[in-house]
Amino acid sequence: MLYVVGFGSGAGECMTGAAEKALKDSDVIIGYTTYTELVKPFFPDKEYLDTGMRQEVERVRLALERSLTDKVALVCSGDPELYGMAALCYELLDEFPEAEIKVIAGVTAAFSGGAVLGAPLTHDTAIISLSDLLTPMEKIERRLRCAAEGDFVIVLYNPSSRKRADYLQKACDIILKYRDPETVCGYVKNIGRDGEESHICTLAELRDESVDMFTTVFIGNSQTREAGGKMVTPRGYLYE
Amino acid sequence: MLYVVGFGSGAGECMTGAAEKALKDSDVIIGYTTYTELVKPFFPDKEYLDTGMRQEVERVRLALERSLTDKVALVCSGDPELYGMAALCYELLDEFPEAEIKVIAGVTAAFSGGAVLGAPLTHDTAIISLSDLLTPMEKIERRLRCAAEGDFVIVLYNPSSRKRADYLQKACDIILKYRDPETVCGYVKNIGRDGEESHICTLAELRDESVDMFTTVFIGNSQTREAGGKMVTPRGYLYE
Repeated sequence: MLYVVGFGSGAGECMTGAAEKALKDSDVIIGYTTYTELVKPFFPDKEYLDTGMRQEVERVRLALERSLTDKVALVCSGDPELYGMAALCYELLDEFPEAEIKVIAGVTAAFSGGAVLGAPLTHDTAIISLSDLLTPMEKIERRLRCAAEGDFVIVLYNPSSRKRADYLQKACDIILKYRDPETVCGYVKNIGRDGEESHICTLAELRDESVDMFTTVFIGNSQTREAGGKMVTPRGYLYE
Repeated sequence: MLYVVGFGSGAGECMTGAAEKALKDSDVIIGYTTYTELVKPFFPDKEYLDTGMRQEVERVRLALERSLTDKVALVCSGDPELYGMAALCYELLDEFPEAEIKVIAGVTAAFSGGAVLGAPLTHDTAIISLSDLLTPMEKIERRLRCAAEGDFVIVLYNPSSRKRADYLQKACDIILKYRDPETVCGYVKNIGRDGEESHICTLAELRDESVDMFTTVFIGNSQTREAGGKMVTPRGYLYE
Protein backbone atom coordinates (compact mmCIF):
# COMPACT_ATOMS: atom_id res chain seq x y z
CA MET A 1 0.00 0.00 0.00
CA LEU A 2 1.25 3.47 -0.92
CA TYR A 3 -0.26 6.31 1.05
CA VAL A 4 0.37 9.71 -0.54
CA VAL A 5 0.00 11.95 2.46
CA GLY A 6 -0.26 15.72 2.81
CA PHE A 7 0.79 16.72 6.30
CA GLY A 8 -0.30 20.35 6.12
CA SER A 9 2.02 23.29 6.57
CA GLY A 10 4.04 22.13 9.53
CA ALA A 11 3.11 18.52 10.45
CA GLY A 12 1.91 18.01 14.04
CA GLU A 13 -1.40 19.75 14.66
CA CYS A 14 -1.79 20.73 11.00
CA MET A 15 -2.22 17.07 10.08
CA THR A 16 -5.64 15.45 9.71
CA GLY A 17 -6.53 12.34 11.70
CA ALA A 18 -6.44 10.34 8.47
CA ALA A 19 -2.90 11.52 7.70
CA GLU A 20 -1.74 10.66 11.19
CA LYS A 21 -3.32 7.21 10.96
CA ALA A 22 -1.66 6.51 7.59
CA LEU A 23 1.76 7.55 8.89
CA LYS A 24 1.32 5.40 12.00
CA ASP A 25 0.31 2.47 9.82
CA SER A 26 3.35 2.82 7.51
CA ASP A 27 6.62 0.93 7.76
CA VAL A 28 8.56 3.37 5.62
CA ILE A 29 8.22 7.13 5.15
CA ILE A 30 9.63 8.60 1.94
CA GLY A 31 9.97 12.24 0.95
CA TYR A 32 12.02 15.25 0.01
CA THR A 33 14.49 15.75 2.86
CA THR A 34 12.95 19.01 4.14
CA TYR A 35 9.61 17.22 4.52
CA THR A 36 10.82 14.03 6.18
CA GLU A 37 12.65 16.23 8.73
CA LEU A 38 9.33 17.88 9.61
CA VAL A 39 7.60 14.51 10.07
CA LYS A 40 10.36 12.63 11.97
CA PRO A 41 9.77 14.18 15.42
CA PHE A 42 6.20 12.84 15.39
CA PHE A 43 7.02 9.33 14.14
CA PRO A 44 10.61 8.75 15.28
CA ASP A 45 10.54 4.95 14.99
CA LYS A 46 9.86 4.64 11.26
CA GLU A 47 12.32 3.85 8.50
CA TYR A 48 12.98 7.04 6.49
CA LEU A 49 14.16 7.36 2.90
CA ASP A 50 15.01 10.91 1.83
CA THR A 51 15.64 12.16 -1.67
CA GLY A 52 16.72 15.61 -2.76
CA MET A 53 14.92 18.20 -4.87
CA ARG A 54 14.37 17.51 -8.55
CA GLN A 55 14.47 13.77 -7.92
CA GLU A 56 10.71 13.46 -8.03
CA VAL A 57 10.50 10.66 -10.59
CA GLU A 58 13.09 8.54 -8.74
CA ARG A 59 11.33 9.22 -5.42
CA VAL A 60 7.95 8.12 -6.72
CA ARG A 61 9.40 4.99 -8.37
CA LEU A 62 11.14 4.13 -5.08
CA ALA A 63 7.87 4.60 -3.17
CA LEU A 64 5.82 2.53 -5.64
CA GLU A 65 8.38 -0.28 -5.70
CA ARG A 66 8.72 -0.42 -1.92
CA SER A 67 4.93 -0.37 -1.54
CA LEU A 68 4.77 -3.82 -3.18
CA THR A 69 6.30 -5.37 -0.03
CA ASP A 70 5.75 -2.76 2.73
CA LYS A 71 3.30 -0.12 3.80
CA VAL A 72 4.79 3.13 2.52
CA ALA A 73 3.88 6.78 3.10
CA LEU A 74 5.10 9.30 0.55
CA VAL A 75 4.89 12.64 2.35
CA CYS A 76 4.22 16.07 0.86
CA SER A 77 3.79 19.37 2.69
CA GLY A 78 0.36 20.95 2.39
CA ASP A 79 -1.83 18.82 0.16
CA PRO A 80 -0.35 15.92 -1.85
CA GLU A 81 -2.19 16.89 -5.02
CA LEU A 82 -1.46 20.60 -5.37
CA TYR A 83 2.03 20.95 -6.87
CA GLY A 84 2.67 17.63 -5.10
CA MET A 85 3.44 14.01 -5.89
CA ALA A 86 0.02 12.33 -6.03
CA ALA A 87 -0.46 12.69 -9.80
CA LEU A 88 3.01 11.33 -10.58
CA CYS A 89 2.21 8.22 -8.52
CA TYR A 90 -0.76 7.51 -10.77
CA GLU A 91 1.22 8.44 -13.89
CA LEU A 92 3.89 5.83 -13.04
CA LEU A 93 1.42 3.19 -11.84
CA ASP A 94 1.73 1.36 -15.20
CA GLU A 95 5.26 0.35 -14.19
CA PHE A 96 4.02 -1.19 -10.92
CA PRO A 97 0.59 -2.56 -11.81
CA GLU A 98 0.25 -4.40 -8.49
CA ALA A 99 0.66 -1.23 -6.45
CA GLU A 100 -2.28 0.29 -4.61
CA ILE A 101 -2.41 4.07 -4.03
CA LYS A 102 -4.44 6.04 -1.50
CA VAL A 103 -4.24 9.84 -1.55
CA ILE A 104 -4.83 11.56 1.80
CA ALA A 105 -5.68 15.24 1.49
CA GLY A 106 -4.01 17.90 3.62
CA VAL A 107 -4.50 21.60 4.27
CA THR A 108 -2.59 23.43 1.55
CA ALA A 109 -0.80 26.75 2.21
CA ALA A 110 -3.61 28.79 0.62
CA PHE A 111 -5.91 27.82 3.47
CA SER A 112 -3.46 27.57 6.36
CA GLY A 113 -1.92 30.89 5.30
CA GLY A 114 -5.34 32.42 4.73
CA ALA A 115 -6.33 31.58 8.31
CA VAL A 116 -3.22 33.43 9.53
CA LEU A 117 -4.13 36.54 7.54
CA GLY A 118 -7.81 36.40 8.56
CA ALA A 119 -10.28 35.25 5.94
CA PRO A 120 -9.10 36.28 2.45
CA LEU A 121 -10.36 33.13 0.71
CA THR A 122 -14.08 33.46 1.39
CA HIS A 123 -14.98 33.73 -2.26
CA ASP A 124 -13.99 32.28 -5.65
CA THR A 125 -10.25 31.75 -5.65
CA ALA A 126 -7.51 31.04 -8.18
CA ILE A 127 -4.28 29.37 -7.09
CA ILE A 128 -1.25 29.91 -9.34
CA SER A 129 2.38 28.83 -8.96
CA LEU A 130 4.95 31.31 -10.28
CA SER A 131 7.54 28.57 -10.72
CA ASP A 132 8.43 28.16 -14.39
CA LEU A 133 10.54 25.05 -13.90
CA LEU A 134 7.75 22.85 -15.30
CA THR A 135 5.34 25.39 -16.77
CA PRO A 136 6.07 27.83 -19.63
CA MET A 137 6.15 31.45 -18.44
CA GLU A 138 3.61 32.50 -21.06
CA LYS A 139 1.10 30.02 -19.60
CA ILE A 140 1.67 31.42 -16.10
CA GLU A 141 1.21 34.96 -17.43
CA ARG A 142 -2.00 34.00 -19.20
CA ARG A 143 -3.35 32.53 -15.97
CA LEU A 144 -2.44 35.67 -14.04
CA ARG A 145 -4.27 37.79 -16.62
CA CYS A 146 -7.35 35.57 -16.56
CA ALA A 147 -7.48 35.35 -12.76
CA ALA A 148 -7.13 39.14 -12.48
CA GLU A 149 -9.76 39.76 -15.15
CA GLY A 150 -12.15 37.34 -13.40
CA ASP A 151 -11.80 39.21 -10.09
CA PHE A 152 -10.75 36.02 -8.32
CA VAL A 153 -8.97 36.17 -5.01
CA ILE A 154 -5.50 35.04 -6.18
CA VAL A 155 -3.04 32.94 -4.19
CA LEU A 156 0.52 32.75 -5.49
CA TYR A 157 2.74 29.78 -4.61
CA ASN A 158 6.50 29.82 -5.19
CA PRO A 159 6.48 33.60 -5.66
CA SER A 160 10.23 33.90 -5.77
CA SER A 161 13.57 32.14 -5.71
CA ARG A 162 17.15 33.17 -6.29
CA LYS A 163 16.81 32.67 -10.03
CA ARG A 164 13.35 34.29 -10.14
CA ALA A 165 13.87 37.30 -7.90
CA ASP A 166 11.59 39.59 -9.94
CA TYR A 167 8.69 37.18 -10.61
CA LEU A 168 6.37 38.60 -7.95
CA GLN A 169 6.97 42.07 -9.37
CA LYS A 170 6.13 40.81 -12.87
CA ALA A 171 3.00 39.09 -11.59
CA CYS A 172 1.84 42.23 -9.78
CA ASP A 173 2.41 44.31 -12.92
CA ILE A 174 0.10 42.00 -14.87
CA ILE A 175 -2.56 42.05 -12.14
CA LEU A 176 -2.30 45.85 -11.77
CA LYS A 177 -3.63 46.19 -15.33
CA TYR A 178 -6.98 44.84 -14.06
CA ARG A 179 -7.07 45.68 -10.39
CA ASP A 180 -6.82 48.79 -8.20
CA PRO A 181 -3.34 49.49 -6.74
CA GLU A 182 -5.10 49.86 -3.35
CA THR A 183 -6.38 46.23 -3.48
CA VAL A 184 -5.81 44.61 -0.09
CA CYS A 185 -3.09 41.95 -0.26
CA GLY A 186 -1.12 39.90 2.22
CA TYR A 187 1.65 37.37 2.49
CA VAL A 188 2.71 34.77 5.02
CA LYS A 189 6.20 33.36 5.51
CA ASN A 190 6.89 29.95 7.08
CA ILE A 191 3.22 29.09 7.66
CA GLY A 192 2.80 26.89 10.75
CA ARG A 193 6.57 26.64 11.19
CA ASP A 194 9.24 28.43 13.21
CA GLY A 195 9.54 32.02 12.07
CA GLU A 196 5.96 32.38 10.85
CA GLU A 197 5.20 35.99 9.97
CA SER A 198 2.39 37.69 8.10
CA HIS A 199 1.94 41.10 6.51
CA ILE A 200 -0.97 43.00 5.00
CA CYS A 201 -0.29 45.61 2.31
CA THR A 202 -1.72 47.11 -0.88
CA LEU A 203 -1.17 45.58 -4.30
CA ALA A 204 1.08 48.53 -5.20
CA GLU A 205 3.19 47.84 -2.10
CA LEU A 206 3.21 44.08 -2.65
CA ARG A 207 4.95 44.65 -5.99
CA ASP A 208 8.08 45.79 -4.15
CA GLU A 209 7.97 43.45 -1.14
CA SER A 210 10.74 40.96 -0.65
CA VAL A 211 9.44 37.41 -0.50
CA ASP A 212 11.15 34.03 -0.60
CA MET A 213 10.25 30.52 -1.67
CA PHE A 214 8.69 29.81 1.73
CA THR A 215 6.20 32.67 1.28
CA THR A 216 2.60 32.40 0.10
CA VAL A 217 1.07 35.54 -1.40
CA PHE A 218 -2.61 36.59 -1.30
CA ILE A 219 -4.16 39.18 -3.61
CA GLY A 220 -7.67 40.26 -2.67
CA ASN A 221 -10.58 40.60 -5.06
CA SER A 222 -12.36 43.94 -5.60
CA GLN A 223 -14.35 43.43 -2.37
CA THR A 224 -11.50 42.41 -0.06
CA ARG A 225 -10.85 44.82 2.80
CA GLU A 226 -9.07 45.12 6.09
CA ALA A 227 -11.24 44.42 9.16
CA GLY A 228 -10.02 44.01 12.72
CA GLY A 229 -6.44 44.20 11.43
CA LYS A 230 -7.06 41.19 9.19
CA MET A 231 -7.42 40.57 5.44
CA VAL A 232 -11.08 39.80 4.87
CA THR A 233 -13.03 38.99 1.69
CA PRO A 234 -16.78 39.26 2.30
CA ARG A 235 -19.00 36.42 1.14
CA GLY A 236 -21.72 38.97 0.55
CA TYR A 237 -24.00 38.53 3.56
CA LEU A 238 -26.05 41.63 4.26
CA TYR A 239 -26.21 43.15 7.70
CA GLU A 240 -26.65 46.51 9.30
CA MET B 1 -12.36 33.18 22.59
CA LEU B 2 -14.11 32.38 19.29
CA TYR B 3 -12.58 29.55 17.29
CA VAL B 4 -13.85 29.44 13.72
CA VAL B 5 -13.21 25.83 12.87
CA GLY B 6 -13.32 23.91 9.60
CA PHE B 7 -13.86 20.25 10.34
CA GLY B 8 -13.21 18.97 6.80
CA SER B 9 -15.72 17.04 4.76
CA GLY B 10 -17.08 14.67 7.37
CA ALA B 11 -15.61 15.49 10.80
CA GLY B 12 -13.77 12.62 12.52
CA GLU B 13 -10.60 11.68 10.65
CA CYS B 14 -10.96 14.59 8.21
CA MET B 15 -10.30 17.04 11.04
CA THR B 16 -6.86 18.43 11.76
CA GLY B 17 -5.31 18.07 15.19
CA ALA B 18 -5.71 21.83 15.68
CA ALA B 19 -9.44 21.64 14.91
CA GLU B 20 -9.88 18.74 17.31
CA LYS B 21 -8.00 20.62 20.03
CA ALA B 22 -10.12 23.76 19.57
CA LEU B 23 -13.36 21.79 19.75
CA LYS B 24 -12.16 19.97 22.87
CA ASP B 25 -11.23 23.31 24.42
CA SER B 26 -14.64 24.88 23.69
CA ASP B 27 -17.59 25.11 26.06
CA VAL B 28 -20.14 25.77 23.33
CA ILE B 29 -20.29 24.60 19.70
CA ILE B 30 -22.39 26.69 17.31
CA GLY B 31 -23.28 26.00 13.69
CA TYR B 32 -25.77 25.29 10.97
CA THR B 33 -27.76 22.26 12.12
CA THR B 34 -26.38 19.86 9.49
CA TYR B 35 -22.85 20.66 10.66
CA THR B 36 -23.41 20.42 14.40
CA GLU B 37 -25.01 16.99 13.79
CA LEU B 38 -21.78 15.85 12.11
CA VAL B 39 -19.65 17.08 15.00
CA LYS B 40 -21.83 15.88 17.94
CA PRO B 41 -20.82 12.20 17.88
CA PHE B 42 -17.18 13.20 18.44
CA PHE B 43 -17.83 15.74 21.21
CA PRO B 44 -21.08 14.57 22.82
CA ASP B 45 -20.62 16.46 26.09
CA LYS B 46 -20.58 20.02 24.74
CA GLU B 47 -23.37 22.56 24.71
CA TYR B 48 -24.70 22.93 21.16
CA LEU B 49 -26.51 25.88 19.58
CA ASP B 50 -27.91 25.20 16.11
CA THR B 51 -29.26 27.73 13.66
CA GLY B 52 -30.89 27.11 10.31
CA MET B 53 -29.77 28.04 6.81
CA ARG B 54 -29.79 31.72 5.81
CA GLN B 55 -29.38 32.77 9.44
CA GLU B 56 -25.67 33.39 9.04
CA VAL B 57 -25.61 36.92 10.46
CA GLU B 58 -27.60 35.88 13.55
CA ARG B 59 -25.38 32.82 14.01
CA VAL B 60 -22.17 34.84 13.88
CA ARG B 61 -23.53 37.50 16.26
CA LEU B 62 -24.57 34.74 18.66
CA ALA B 63 -21.10 33.18 18.47
CA LEU B 64 -19.30 36.50 18.97
CA GLU B 65 -21.51 37.49 21.91
CA ARG B 66 -21.19 34.15 23.64
CA SER B 67 -17.40 34.19 23.10
CA LEU B 68 -17.14 37.16 25.48
CA THR B 69 -17.94 34.84 28.42
CA ASP B 70 -17.20 31.32 27.14
CA LYS B 71 -14.91 29.47 24.79
CA VAL B 72 -16.94 29.06 21.62
CA ALA B 73 -16.36 27.07 18.42
CA LEU B 74 -18.27 28.12 15.33
CA VAL B 75 -18.10 25.10 13.04
CA CYS B 76 -18.06 25.03 9.24
CA SER B 77 -17.71 22.02 6.98
CA GLY B 78 -14.57 21.95 4.85
CA ASP B 79 -12.57 25.13 5.46
CA PRO B 80 -14.05 28.01 7.50
CA GLU B 81 -12.90 30.64 5.00
CA LEU B 82 -14.08 29.27 1.66
CA TYR B 83 -17.79 30.09 1.33
CA GLY B 84 -17.75 29.86 5.14
CA MET B 85 -18.26 32.04 8.18
CA ALA B 86 -14.74 33.27 9.05
CA ALA B 87 -14.97 36.53 7.08
CA LEU B 88 -18.34 37.44 8.57
CA CYS B 89 -16.86 37.03 12.07
CA TYR B 90 -14.26 39.67 11.27
CA GLU B 91 -16.85 41.85 9.50
CA LEU B 92 -19.02 41.92 12.65
CA LEU B 93 -16.11 42.26 15.08
CA ASP B 94 -16.79 46.02 15.39
CA GLU B 95 -19.97 45.17 17.31
CA PHE B 96 -18.02 43.05 19.82
CA PRO B 97 -14.66 44.80 20.09
CA GLU B 98 -13.57 42.66 23.05
CA ALA B 99 -13.96 39.43 21.11
CA GLU B 100 -10.92 37.44 20.01
CA ILE B 101 -11.10 35.32 16.85
CA LYS B 102 -8.92 32.42 15.78
CA VAL B 103 -9.52 30.79 12.39
CA ILE B 104 -8.56 27.12 12.14
CA ALA B 105 -8.19 25.90 8.56
CA GLY B 106 -9.74 22.66 7.34
CA VAL B 107 -9.55 20.53 4.21
CA THR B 108 -12.08 21.95 1.77
CA ALA B 109 -14.09 19.74 -0.62
CA ALA B 110 -11.84 20.60 -3.57
CA PHE B 111 -9.00 18.71 -1.93
CA SER B 112 -10.87 15.96 -0.09
CA GLY B 113 -12.92 15.31 -3.25
CA GLY B 114 -9.83 15.54 -5.44
CA ALA B 115 -8.16 12.80 -3.38
CA VAL B 116 -11.20 10.56 -4.00
CA LEU B 117 -10.97 11.11 -7.77
CA GLY B 118 -7.18 10.65 -7.85
CA ALA B 119 -5.10 13.78 -8.33
CA PRO B 120 -6.97 16.33 -10.47
CA LEU B 121 -5.67 19.39 -8.58
CA THR B 122 -1.98 19.05 -9.24
CA HIS B 123 -1.74 22.29 -11.13
CA ASP B 124 -3.12 25.85 -11.07
CA THR B 125 -6.73 25.66 -9.94
CA ALA B 126 -9.77 27.94 -9.87
CA ILE B 127 -12.57 27.33 -7.39
CA ILE B 128 -15.98 28.78 -8.27
CA SER B 129 -19.35 28.51 -6.52
CA LEU B 130 -22.36 28.35 -8.85
CA SER B 131 -24.68 29.63 -6.13
CA ASP B 132 -26.13 32.99 -7.12
CA LEU B 133 -27.78 33.67 -3.77
CA LEU B 134 -25.05 36.17 -2.84
CA THR B 135 -23.23 36.65 -6.15
CA PRO B 136 -24.69 38.09 -9.38
CA MET B 137 -24.94 35.45 -12.12
CA GLU B 138 -23.01 37.63 -14.57
CA LYS B 139 -20.03 37.65 -12.18
CA ILE B 140 -20.16 33.86 -11.90
CA GLU B 141 -20.32 33.58 -15.70
CA ARG B 142 -17.37 35.92 -16.11
CA ARG B 143 -15.33 33.82 -13.69
CA LEU B 144 -16.25 30.64 -15.56
CA ARG B 145 -15.12 32.22 -18.84
CA CYS B 146 -11.85 33.48 -17.35
CA ALA B 147 -11.07 30.17 -15.61
CA ALA B 148 -11.76 28.25 -18.82
CA GLU B 149 -9.70 30.65 -20.94
CA GLY B 150 -6.81 30.40 -18.45
CA ASP B 151 -6.78 26.59 -18.71
CA PHE B 152 -7.17 26.25 -14.96
CA VAL B 153 -8.37 23.03 -13.41
CA ILE B 154 -11.84 24.18 -12.30
CA VAL B 155 -13.67 23.05 -9.18
CA LEU B 156 -17.36 23.91 -8.93
CA TYR B 157 -19.07 24.16 -5.53
CA ASN B 158 -22.86 24.26 -5.15
CA PRO B 159 -23.31 23.04 -8.74
CA SER B 160 -27.04 22.60 -8.41
CA SER B 161 -30.10 22.92 -6.24
CA ARG B 162 -33.85 22.60 -6.79
CA LYS B 163 -34.09 26.21 -7.93
CA ARG B 164 -30.90 26.00 -10.01
CA ALA B 165 -31.34 22.63 -11.71
CA ASP B 166 -29.70 23.72 -14.99
CA TYR B 167 -26.72 25.68 -13.59
CA LEU B 168 -24.15 22.95 -14.17
CA GLN B 169 -25.36 22.66 -17.77
CA LYS B 170 -25.01 26.43 -18.23
CA ALA B 171 -21.53 26.37 -16.69
CA CYS B 172 -20.42 23.52 -18.96
CA ASP B 173 -21.74 25.38 -22.01
CA ILE B 174 -19.55 28.37 -21.14
CA ILE B 175 -16.49 26.20 -20.51
CA LEU B 176 -17.09 24.20 -23.73
CA LYS B 177 -16.44 27.38 -25.72
CA TYR B 178 -12.81 27.19 -24.57
CA ARG B 179 -12.18 23.56 -23.81
CA ASP B 180 -12.38 20.22 -25.66
CA PRO B 181 -15.61 18.23 -25.09
CA GLU B 182 -13.36 15.23 -24.34
CA THR B 183 -11.71 17.05 -21.37
CA VAL B 184 -11.51 14.65 -18.42
CA CYS B 185 -13.92 15.66 -15.64
CA GLY B 186 -15.23 14.10 -12.46
CA TYR B 187 -17.58 14.64 -9.59
CA VAL B 188 -17.92 13.39 -6.05
CA LYS B 189 -21.09 13.19 -3.98
CA ASN B 190 -21.15 13.18 -0.17
CA ILE B 191 -17.36 13.41 0.21
CA GLY B 192 -16.19 11.64 3.37
CA ARG B 193 -19.77 10.95 4.43
CA ASP B 194 -22.23 8.07 4.11
CA GLY B 195 -23.11 7.50 0.47
CA GLU B 196 -19.84 8.84 -0.96
CA GLU B 197 -19.64 8.15 -4.68
CA SER B 198 -17.40 9.41 -7.46
CA HIS B 199 -17.59 9.40 -11.23
CA ILE B 200 -15.22 10.27 -14.06
CA CYS B 201 -16.62 11.47 -17.38
CA THR B 202 -15.94 13.83 -20.27
CA LEU B 203 -16.90 17.50 -20.22
CA ALA B 204 -19.58 16.78 -22.84
CA GLU B 205 -21.03 14.07 -20.60
CA LEU B 206 -20.74 16.20 -17.45
CA ARG B 207 -23.08 18.74 -19.02
CA ASP B 208 -25.95 16.26 -18.75
CA GLU B 209 -25.08 14.58 -15.46
CA SER B 210 -27.43 14.90 -12.55
CA VAL B 211 -25.73 16.46 -9.52
CA ASP B 212 -27.07 17.81 -6.25
CA MET B 213 -25.98 20.39 -3.70
CA PHE B 214 -23.79 17.82 -1.93
CA THR B 215 -21.76 17.27 -5.10
CA THR B 216 -18.39 18.83 -5.95
CA VAL B 217 -17.50 18.98 -9.65
CA PHE B 218 -13.99 18.85 -11.17
CA ILE B 219 -13.15 19.98 -14.72
CA GLY B 220 -9.69 19.03 -15.91
CA ASN B 221 -7.27 21.34 -17.68
CA SER B 222 -5.97 20.59 -21.20
CA GLN B 223 -3.44 18.13 -19.76
CA THR B 224 -5.71 16.19 -17.40
CA ARG B 225 -6.11 12.52 -18.27
CA GLU B 226 -7.33 9.23 -16.90
CA ALA B 227 -4.60 7.04 -15.39
CA GLY B 228 -5.15 3.88 -13.37
CA GLY B 229 -8.89 4.57 -13.43
CA LYS B 230 -8.33 7.95 -11.76
CA MET B 231 -8.56 11.62 -12.80
CA VAL B 232 -4.99 12.86 -12.99
CA THR B 233 -3.55 16.27 -13.89
CA PRO B 234 0.19 16.01 -14.53
CA ARG B 235 2.49 18.49 -12.85
CA GLY B 236 4.80 18.22 -15.85
CA TYR B 237 7.59 15.96 -14.59
CA LEU B 238 9.37 14.23 -17.45
CA TYR B 239 9.93 10.48 -17.39
CA GLU B 240 10.27 7.63 -19.86
